[in-house]
Amino acid sequence: MMPLPTDFLLGTAQSLATVSEAEQRMLLRTGAVLPSPEELQRFMQFVRAVVFPGFYDQRTSSSDTRLFHTGVAVEQIYSILCRQIARGFVFCREQGAESGISALANSLAERFVTELPEIKRLVLTDVEAVALRDPAVSNYGEVVLSYPCIMEMLHHRTAHALYRLGVPVIPRMIAEQAHSLTGIDIHPAAQIGEYFSIDHGTGVVIGETTVIGNRVMLYQGVTLGAKNFQYDSEGRPMDLPRHPVIEDRVTIYSNASILGRVRIGHDSVIGGNVWITRDVPPGSRITQSGPVVEREFADGSGI
Amino acid sequence: MMPLPTDFLLGTAQSLATVSEAEQRMLLRTGAVLPSPEELQRFMQFVRAVVFPGFYDQRTSSSDTRLFHTGVAVEQIYSILCRQIARGFVFCREQGAESGISALANSLAERFVTELPEIKRLVLTDVEAVALRDPAVSNYGEVVLSYPCIMEMLHHRTAHALYRLGVPVIPRMIAEQAHSLTGIDIHPAAQIGEYFSIDHGTGVVIGETTVIGNRVMLYQGVTLGAKNFQYDSEGRPMDLPRHPVIEDRVTIYSNASILGRVRIGHDSVIGGNVWITRDVPPGSRITQSGPVVEREFADGSGI
Amino acid sequence: MMPLPTDFLLGTAQSLATVSEAEQRMLLRTGAVLPSPEELQRFMQFVRAVVFPGFYDQRTSSSDTRLFHTGVAVEQIYSILCRQIARGFVFCREQGAESGISALANSLAERFVTELPEIKRLVLTDVEAVALRDPAVSNYGEVVLSYPCIMEMLHHRTAHALYRLGVPVIPRMIAEQAHSLTGIDIHPAAQIGEYFSIDHGTGVVIGETTVIGNRVMLYQGVTLGAKNFQYDSEGRPMDLPRHPVIEDRVTIYSNASILGRVRIGHDSVIGGNVWITRDVPPGSRITQSGPVVEREFADGSGI
Amino acid sequence: MMPLPTDFLLGTAQSLATVSEAEQRMLLRTGAVLPSPEELQRFMQFVRAVVFPGFYDQRTSSSDTRLFHTGVAVEQIYSILCRQIARGFVFCREQGAESGISALANSLAERFVTELPEIKRLVLTDVEAVALRDPAVSNYGEVVLSYPCIMEMLHHRTAHALYRLGVPVIPRMIAEQAHSLTGIDIHPAAQIGEYFSIDHGTGVVIGETTVIGNRVMLYQGVTLGAKNFQYDSEGRPMDLPRHPVIEDRVTIYSNASILGRVRIGHDSVIGGNVWITRDVPPGSRITQSGPVVEREFADGSGI
Amino acid sequence: MMPLPTDFLLGTAQSLATVSEAEQRMLLRTGAVLPSPEELQRFMQFVRAVVFPGFYDQRTSSSDTRLFHTGVAVEQIYSILCRQIARGFVFCREQGAESGISALANSLAERFVTELPEIKRLVLTDVEAVALRDPAVSNYGEVVLSYPCIMEMLHHRTAHALYRLGVPVIPRMIAEQAHSLTGIDIHPAAQIGEYFSIDHGTGVVIGETTVIGNRVMLYQGVTLGAKNFQYDSEGRPMDLPRHPVIEDRVTIYSNASILGRVRIGHDSVIGGNVWITRDVPPGSRITQSGPVVEREFADGSGI
Amino acid sequence: MMPLPTDFLLGTAQSLATVSEAEQRMLLRTGAVLPSPEELQRFMQFVRAVVFPGFYDQRTSSSDTRLFHTGVAVEQIYSILCRQIARGFVFCREQGAESGISALANSLAERFVTELPEIKRLVLTDVEAVALRDPAVSNYGEVVLSYPCIMEMLHHRTAHALYRLGVPVIPRMIAEQAHSLTGIDIHPAAQIGEYFSIDHGTGVVIGETTVIGNRVMLYQGVTLGAKNFQYDSEGRPMDLPRHPVIEDRVTIYSNASILGRVRIGHDSVIGGNVWITRDVPPGSRITQSGPVVEREFADGSGI
Repeated sequence: MMPLPTDFLLGTAQSLATVSEAEQRMLLRTGAVLPSPEELQRFMQFVRAVVFPGFYDQRTSSSDTRLFHTGVAVEQIYSILCRQIARGFVFCREQGAESGISALANSLAERFVTELPEIKRLVLTDVEAVALRDPAVSNYGEVVLSYPCIMEMLHHRTAHALYRLGVPVIPRMIAEQAHSLTGIDIHPAAQIGEYFSIDHGTGVVIGETTVIGNRVMLYQGVTLGAKNFQYDSEGRPMDLPRHPVIEDRVTIYSNASILGRVRIGHDSVIGGNVWITRDVPPGSRITQSGPVVEREFADGSGI
Repeated sequence: MMPLPTDFLLGTAQSLATVSEAEQRMLLRTGAVLPSPEELQRFMQFVRAVVFPGFYDQRTSSSDTRLFHTGVAVEQIYSILCRQIARGFVFCREQGAESGISALANSLAERFVTELPEIKRLVLTDVEAVALRDPAVSNYGEVVLSYPCIMEMLHHRTAHALYRLGVPVIPRMIAEQAHSLTGIDIHPAAQIGEYFSIDHGTGVVIGETTVIGNRVMLYQGVTLGAKNFQYDSEGRPMDLPRHPVIEDRVTIYSNASILGRVRIGHDSVIGGNVWITRDVPPGSRITQSGPVVEREFADGSGI
Repeated sequence: MMPLPTDFLLGTAQSLATVSEAEQRMLLRTGAVLPSPEELQRFMQFVRAVVFPGFYDQRTSSSDTRLFHTGVAVEQIYSILCRQIARGFVFCREQGAESGISALANSLAERFVTELPEIKRLVLTDVEAVALRDPAVSNYGEVVLSYPCIMEMLHHRTAHALYRLGVPVIPRMIAEQAHSLTGIDIHPAAQIGEYFSIDHGTGVVIGETTVIGNRVMLYQGVTLGAKNFQYDSEGRPMDLPRHPVIEDRVTIYSNASILGRVRIGHDSVIGGNVWITRDVPPGSRITQSGPVVEREFADGSGI
Repeated sequence: MMPLPTDFLLGTAQSLATVSEAEQRMLLRTGAVLPSPEELQRFMQFVRAVVFPGFYDQRTSSSDTRLFHTGVAVEQIYSILCRQIARGFVFCREQGAESGISALANSLAERFVTELPEIKRLVLTDVEAVALRDPAVSNYGEVVLSYPCIMEMLHHRTAHALYRLGVPVIPRMIAEQAHSLTGIDIHPAAQIGEYFSIDHGTGVVIGETTVIGNRVMLYQGVTLGAKNFQYDSEGRPMDLPRHPVIEDRVTIYSNASILGRVRIGHDSVIGGNVWITRDVPPGSRITQSGPVVEREFADGSGI
Repeated sequence: MMPLPTDFLLGTAQSLATVSEAEQRMLLRTGAVLPSPEELQRFMQFVRAVVFPGFYDQRTSSSDTRLFHTGVAVEQIYSILCRQIARGFVFCREQGAESGISALANSLAERFVTELPEIKRLVLTDVEAVALRDPAVSNYGEVVLSYPCIMEMLHHRTAHALYRLGVPVIPRMIAEQAHSLTGIDIHPAAQIGEYFSIDHGTGVVIGETTVIGNRVMLYQGVTLGAKNFQYDSEGRPMDLPRHPVIEDRVTIYSNASILGRVRIGHDSVIGGNVWITRDVPPGSRITQSGPVVEREFADGSGI
Repeated sequence: MMPLPTDFLLGTAQSLATVSEAEQRMLLRTGAVLPSPEELQRFMQFVRAVVFPGFYDQRTSSSDTRLFHTGVAVEQIYSILCRQIARGFVFCREQGAESGISALANSLAERFVTELPEIKRLVLTDVEAVALRDPAVSNYGEVVLSYPCIMEMLHHRTAHALYRLGVPVIPRMIAEQAHSLTGIDIHPAAQIGEYFSIDHGTGVVIGETTVIGNRVMLYQGVTLGAKNFQYDSEGRPMDLPRHPVIEDRVTIYSNASILGRVRIGHDSVIGGNVWITRDVPPGSRITQSGPVVEREFADGSGI
């Protein structure tokens, strides 16, 4: 391999290192250190170890030593959060306003720690919901080990707790890590009740202002999305409630799309592949408009 | 960063370490060590090396030394399986019945090893099926290196062999690892014939009791799912045949959903986005019921 | 664990190491070393560091030292490419034609380096497009850190540049790595204009001969696919233009499928879940054919 | 690179894999798994973390959470030891006698755990001894972080406790790991009192039956060795007391050699480079026999 | 493996976690984070890359890109030092005096960067000295790659520069890392002139207040040590000049010991195994006092 | 942390990147890639696995699969050597003479492979020699796992075989890696017979032209060195035989120095700390010249 000529390399590097006008808008503050994706993964591993002790740490599941492991995990959760929240604030703030960031980050991290028992309680309801709904489940432990829904909800309930505390950027990064693993995309701001379950899950999208009740079940490919945006006077889309409200005990089958600030009444069942843009009363059964018709393709092609 | 106060930390840890009633149901046996996701990944790497020698081990593909590498890989496959199957049984069994687990695990691992040549043969038919169907393929090796379908089928055919041997939990964990990588979710119990291919694949779901013939091809987003469950006298869903039977040489286009124990006759073509809940005779061509109509949105909104 | 008997192991290994007729077709050249997925991941990390300096390298984002880091990254990009492109050629070529591969690989790697500033410019337009369309975005940096669309386009614009230079295999491997991370599957040959954005993204498929204009936006599950193939005289599918042309400023909502060499006119809006197989004039608004009808399921089942 | 011819490779491998008569004597039991050097390194890291909390774990040294970290470390120490001691017994025993190994290993591991507080107390006396003797020491922490003597004694006092419990092989492996790091070679059986220190240390050798009192100090290159062996009737060297007894408060300067079962009386000082093979009364001052004489080399050479 | 009983584990952990009186003296400040041995190893790797570009970074030694690599390495050297020096001050200071530590650390790190060219110049003189003295050397590069003397001097000249800047703890940690690798123990405060070389090196000790001129050569096992200490009124050893002064062009053969504040005149040669405690005039040739005598051992033993 | 000013950083980097006259002499060829220490460590791990199957690879020591593991290890040994030997030649040669390096490297690597059985045979004699001489040995396996002598001889016998094949640089690098681990420094050119053993070993030095017979034993700190050099007409030291010849069955006790091309007759015993510079007849017993005298230190000091 012949090395690149110095001049060529220098020229390319200078061209790339020059800050264009477009880049100017996304320029970071001098000296800022970004939240670390790797650290957030470690953070989630500790949350997971606290919620499912004995499952994910490759050791025997002795309840005798659970207290010690939990104590260490909680301390790690706290100390990683302190650093990453502080980075998140530096990342998002205007130049200048730095004083007090560290104290604020510590305080939010401590408040998150107090949320952990509730996060654990909620995720355990999700495990139970999956186990009750899927005849392929042979025991609860199998649900924990191999259902993407549980991995997703562990992340979402954590990200949502951080979102409600006002932590910037980090909830979104945690949500995206779960999305990459599971193919399920839940905005951290979405409100989701207990005993929530998703089967298979790939392609599910749950938007920012969605509100979901208790004991709701979704299948793969379901979209709870926005229909359109309203724009403010400067032409920017406005961040208003624009995603559905799903009431208790609703089931939504695969690839259904529910769009806009509509309300799906409790105990409804939404069939697969339907497209809903208005309210549905409680107890409804919705399916595609017409029967599927068999037709020979006129042109004999594959479609 | 100020450390958390001892009392606060101790209180939180105790709250988290206490076993709630809900958690009781998923409690592990004392001393049990769970199947290790990391070890199962190593296991799959050895299976991959055996099925595609020279492709995945970063060395030259000398056929001269293939026998040695294969021997070592087979030994690793066997010894990892011995340990993980034993863990799987401990994980799933009732308290008490432990004697004989080790001998059973060894015996199942050995039987899996005898399945390897057939697994290899089947996956190679899948490579061939992909290569024949996709005009973008320039050579067979490219299919191995860059088609998620092949990664998926390598996992599925392995998981299915383990499932048929009665190995608990582990087939499901292997399937979920493939799901996370490819977005394709195939239950390990699903029966799939030779020369199977999936294009793109994201969002494909193939349920537990599905039966698929030879030379079937699917596109992304296809669901082969259950329509509904029957419940037993205790209100638990029953594990009966409830997913489709797809006969030989069927092609199913993107985002089609076929639900329930229906039969798609051989040589049929199912169009994209259709929703099928009853049998389809051999040689059928199915497409959406009506033509797509262009309409101006009344409200001029984005939808 | 009892070791496997020697004879059993030897027999299994020989059976597996024997080259079947099917395997013959995918046999690698003796001595060939395949392109390394791990090296291509390192390659993409350097591309990412060059496009988003300060974001992905866990250091402070000092602009003072940007030139040095860029220079080192460019050198790494070049030297990894030299090796991997050469491997790609060996992988794809007929037996025999090896002379000149190294010089050709170096020359293509150097030409790729000259494309880097344009790749950077294009990806920055994508960041801007996302930021302008999504009301949940609070700053540009958040888009870079947590939107799968950006990760995808970083890979696609890189893979596409390599594709246009005639580099074999490697563009496809890079595309598949992005697909696994994001659930978005874009063929490296697809042509995509500037200010492109995808929201959520899981399940999006963009085929090989697709042409997309500027400022186009897609939602999750959109398929820009082929309708059917034409076959050549030997029965192999022909690699002709068979995917859509999407003109400037088109928006396509979730799970829509546009199939075949059709043209979607500029400034059109395609609604969710529609299925389009013919041209659409500029400025169109397309939605599903009929209104969704609420029906009680006759059988009271879940669907 | 041309691959090796199959026959050549096979021949070499067979030649190497054949068990010669010499190798027969060191053959391992079928199925035995050896003690793992890597696991023993992890074990020592946990011992170190218990003895010097806050020093070696890269976290803040909060005493608030010390109890949790200690509990986890002790559990790890116990569980690693259970496995490794069992492997050690399998490694050393005659074919056949395997039953009960696991219970014995667990029991010894538990007894080792009860020794940990005393090991910690003793190593802290060594830290104090170093700090009091070396004028270059500025604080106690510096001794912990940068004196090889402390690293050595942490290993020795651990290895010695295991030796006294009758654990096979493992004490020797731990001792050798310290030897490689520090150049100090102490046999695990050597008995060493409290407040022990070694300065610099490279080349120090302390033999198997050595007995050392309290507050003894050694310099680099000191040998406390055997003079000769007695042989048993089969010509094998006998394992009798054959190394020195060093009483309290003795100082031995660099490169001195004390050989055989001799007694160095308390409060003696042994000068550098001397060679002692008989008893020395308490309070002695020993130095080289004659003064150093300056001489011109007769041949003008460098020596 | 049976888990340890909770009470037993708790009792042991409490016993270990209790701070004894002895431990009180080495207690760290609450919240202090210690200097990281791993980070200091990374630091030394960057120093090495700057001093020997092309040797240690596994890439081609293109001089074309040397400037970029050097710039990045210098930035890393600076930023690691900023953090570690600050930790070193926190580690060593009394409770309370923390303000200004960060600014001081940055300033010292910057001053160290200005010393790098001189460190590089000096280490290159050591390479030249080795190459000139050893007939087994075939080229300069071999000296860099395989002589422990060069590894040692790279560390010492770095540690010494930090020592002279008043950096606490860290010079000692760097020196000890070299000691563990090479068996050569040089105190960071020792002053050593240019063109210094050590052959083999194991067991060499060079004390804190040693002063060594230019073109000095040592062999293995040489001690430049203290003879005894003077104690202050509180009985603590005083940190006065107490190690030798070695003038220009002196050679000292293996295992020689030179002790106390004595002066070895320029151009002297000190023979192996001698013991010197007083001044030696320039141009001396010193060897052992008497000839070696052959004697039969009276007792016929091995010694 | 404030970033360094650009100008300051640029200035320092330029100063460091400038090639001084001294550096000119050790400049590498443009494009040369150096032998990799990490690869040579991997190489030695494979050699170790071949010599001691079952000991070092953390798997069960089943003789059933030994042939497979050996075959794979031999292939790895060969392929690593091919690359590293070629790098070694590029590193050492004059500019220009590159053609044929690759073929030469392959040929030497193949010849090394044929030496492996003899290397294994010799190292096993060393294991036996240690086991027979040390009463602390309880079984042969313990010698393999925990005696630095065996680690050293594994490296030396490998490095010596490469040296005799004319491989440049690499033998020296392997020898230095062993030196760092064991404190024993043996030049790869030294000739050593079978059944060789070293006890403890730290500080042992064996020079380039040393010749050692069979069944020789050394203790720690022994030097087999050169007395002085002869210089050629250009003032460079000449590479002539200048180290001792040690005949069969000689034992040399700790810290003895034998210097120059002298011959120690077979069956001799050399006592500790002696200094020998002339021939010793067979069967000799050599010890220090005079008895050790006890003296009070005149000044009451510590020496």
